[in-house]
Amino acid sequence: MNGVNQDMLPDQLHQALAAIVGPDRLLDVDNDRFTYSYDGSFLPLVPAHRPDVVVFPRDVGEVVRIVRLCNDHRVPLVPRGAGSGRTGGSIPVNGGVVLSLERMNRILEIDRKNMMALVEPGVRTMDLGRAVEDVGLFYPPDPSSWTVSTMGGNVAENAGGARAVKYGVTKDYVLGLQVVLANGAVIDTGGKAVKNVTGYDLTHLFVGSEGTLGVITKILVRLISKPKAKKTLLLMFGSIDDASECVTDMLSSGIVPASAEIMDKTSIQAVARFRKVDIPVEAEAALLIDIDGPQILLDDQAGAVTEMARQHQAVQVSVAQTSAEADELWVLRRTMGPAVAAIAKNKIGEDISVPRAALPEMIRRLGEIGRKHGLTIAVFGHAGDGNLHPSILADLSEAGARERVDQAVAEVFRAALEVGGTLSGEHGIGITKKPFIEEALGKEGVRALRAVKHALDPNGILNPGKIFE
Amino acid sequence: MNGVNQDMLPDQLHQALAAIVGPDRLLDVDNDRFTYSYDGSFLPLVPAHRPDVVVFPRDVGEVVRIVRLCNDHRVPLVPRGAGSGRTGGSIPVNGGVVLSLERMNRILEIDRKNMMALVEPGVRTMDLGRAVEDVGLFYPPDPSSWTVSTMGGNVAENAGGARAVKYGVTKDYVLGLQVVLANGAVIDTGGKAVKNVTGYDLTHLFVGSEGTLGVITKILVRLISKPKAKKTLLLMFGSIDDASECVTDMLSSGIVPASAEIMDKTSIQAVARFRKVDIPVEAEAALLIDIDGPQILLDDQAGAVTEMARQHQAVQVSVAQTSAEADELWVLRRTMGPAVAAIAKNKIGEDISVPRAALPEMIRRLGEIGRKHGLTIAVFGHAGDGNLHPSILADLSEAGARERVDQAVAEVFRAALEVGGTLSGEHGIGITKKPFIEEALGKEGVRALRAVKHALDPNGILNPGKIFE
Repeated sequence: MNGVNQDMLPDQLHQALAAIVGPDRLLDVDNDRFTYSYDGSFLPLVPAHRPDVVVFPRDVGEVVRIVRLCNDHRVPLVPRGAGSGRTGGSIPVNGGVVLSLERMNRILEIDRKNMMALVEPGVRTMDLGRAVEDVGLFYPPDPSSWTVSTMGGNVAENAGGARAVKYGVTKDYVLGLQVVLANGAVIDTGGKAVKNVTGYDLTHLFVGSEGTLGVITKILVRLISKPKAKKTLLLMFGSIDDASECVTDMLSSGIVPASAEIMDKTSIQAVARFRKVDIPVEAEAALLIDIDGPQILLDDQAGAVTEMARQHQAVQVSVAQTSAEADELWVLRRTMGPAVAAIAKNKIGEDISVPRAALPEMIRRLGEIGRKHGLTIAVFGHAGDGNLHPSILADLSEAGARERVDQAVAEVFRAALEVGGTLSGEHGIGITKKPFIEEALGKEGVRALRAVKHALDPNGILNPGKIFE
Repeated sequence: MNGVNQDMLPDQLHQALAAIVGPDRLLDVDNDRFTYSYDGSFLPLVPAHRPDVVVFPRDVGEVVRIVRLCNDHRVPLVPRGAGSGRTGGSIPVNGGVVLSLERMNRILEIDRKNMMALVEPGVRTMDLGRAVEDVGLFYPPDPSSWTVSTMGGNVAENAGGARAVKYGVTKDYVLGLQVVLANGAVIDTGGKAVKNVTGYDLTHLFVGSEGTLGVITKILVRLISKPKAKKTLLLMFGSIDDASECVTDMLSSGIVPASAEIMDKTSIQAVARFRKVDIPVEAEAALLIDIDGPQILLDDQAGAVTEMARQHQAVQVSVAQTSAEADELWVLRRTMGPAVAAIAKNKIGEDISVPRAALPEMIRRLGEIGRKHGLTIAVFGHAGDGNLHPSILADLSEAGARERVDQAVAEVFRAALEVGGTLSGEHGIGITKKPFIEEALGKEGVRALRAVKHALDPNGILNPGKIFE
């Protein structure tokens, strides 16, 4: 896969691409190349990561011609949405062509009868969300980047979000794809028949494949009916274990919250300082719970959740009575990122996913890892599904800090694997987690991934250097 | 893939396999070979479909040795569960070894805290269902074969069922697999972390791959909390369109039934004759609706559904007040298979899946196809997700009947594709639908499937002759 060795000079490449998209939809001056050399990850900027050219195709025909050109001349091709990814998935580490899908951003159809939408990859997740809400429908996946991230990027990384505990992640909504393969062939996978066992499930092979198996040019997603009502509860506990057990009790009892966000003491206090929120001194953990559904159910469920929280020695229970109050409670979670960032020079945010029951153990281990390396680790995340975002706080300008952080990050990943979890819940592997993939999947597991990659992209032109070596 | 050409004599193969599983877990006399030469499909019996040997491994170590042996000597290997499949997926069309997973039938773990179960492939679906219900949990997929079918077979075919409209199909519950690859390597995919984007989604590549990519030796499924209560409604309509529109209205309004089974006039009348049920003469279609969830919701929803049915000119509405009454209503659907079979010498049951909104159009076309070929086609199926089971009724002993049926079946598949649907909703492709796969997926689509197959099974030993040529 590292054998990509382009046989075209930059000038020839430029000319051939200009012949496809025209001079207006092509960038190759230094400033622009710099702009497309990084993403939403915390990676140091590297000149080698600059693409030779950035192109903006407008339709699948142009994509086919670009892919063929790159395949014929062994030019690395890196598909890109909004570049908001967290693991370097859209960084052109070997240069070559960045294929930006920003201009393919039309919502092609909202099919109300079948409750589906067909979109181009450049559509912003938020724009799809709003368009379908306008007709009473709902697209549940809500990655926190949703105001900027694109559907193509969400599909490529199998993006999650806070609502995953009840509604699942991106892959649970993708019914079909149009994909341009490395050889330029266009295939359609899946379709509007929701039950479909015709051949291997290529749709879900492409979802989460981080642009390494094909270029996604159309996405068919299913929608659901918009939940009628919502209720928000903020619960404070004396220990992480109590908070975690409370979530388990809810799910066992059949109450599946739309969101169940957990925050540790460091995180809560960071927000308290940032926003002057009043937090009980004995609060070691907070749970922010959204329940949604028919109004008739919500009061009942809110009562049951309150009772469960009391059984787990909750030190404070707040139930929002209005949507303004709910927004007020959500401030805690919504300002978490900047609030935590404000208490340290640098914040290195991670994404791990563990079995839900292993959550207290994982949080305990995060504390140990932090203490060992003299680092504070703030923890928040999605308790309902065991997906945590530990934030390592450091001052990277200090001597040795980068090394300590790197060691801590490696230990965080290993701890996640040891408790039965995995490297990534919703951010993908990209380049930041690539060194750990073999520990997670085993030699034979990675060999199987490679075999699939080689089958669909024998020349290794598609987003090379990602997921595995 | 057709290059399987075993280089072992039957005697040598027998000895080598006996050395692995011992003489007691190996069958190779004619009677036994016959027993393992067919499945639940309607295929004529063919002597060439008899396996050379049937083996019953007890653990993954034995499976590895059997797979290696077959791979080394290019012996076709056909994994098999209960043999209840409908499309010939477990038939050893090239002979070779049938690897029966019947003896690997332990429920290894029911993890109540994480709400998951780990099972061996030979566990019967019903046995898992009952075991988890005993602890208040619920495994929703309910293929009608569930009293005999195995979890391994369900995963291999991505089995569906009546509850799919609300709860999804088998793939929606599989979180991880242990798989023995064609080269004998054992890989673990997925795991107990429910959000998992570590590498390609191999789990869902194996689900529905019909035993052609690896032998599944462990299955990790997620469970949900058992629904608190259930209510059953039987609605009779003056037209298929009205019935179909009523389902669309329910879903749009946010009422997602646990089941929404549709039956056409031929089907209803067949049952009426079979069980002496009273059916209004003007009933052209019936909907059998289950709604489930918290008790507090059900009366409300039942009222809303009744009102929607009235708006669509329902000619009869029955709401079960007790579970005995509910069972009585379900008789209509449960005796559908035998009742329809009883009105003709032969019943050729099919499985197609179309966009839900295309259901009336598809049923209209089924009528046309039947009339054209002088055949009655009874239609019932899962209206909530557009998955229909047309039953072609014929007397195959009549001259030319087989040909007329074959033509009708081909036209049924084409019609499904024309209305935007697909060849199979829950039965797989196997050998019966293989001739149509290229029409469904296109040349390039099938080429992509073949590339994946070749990557994971380069010698083509795993269940050869299935899905595609």
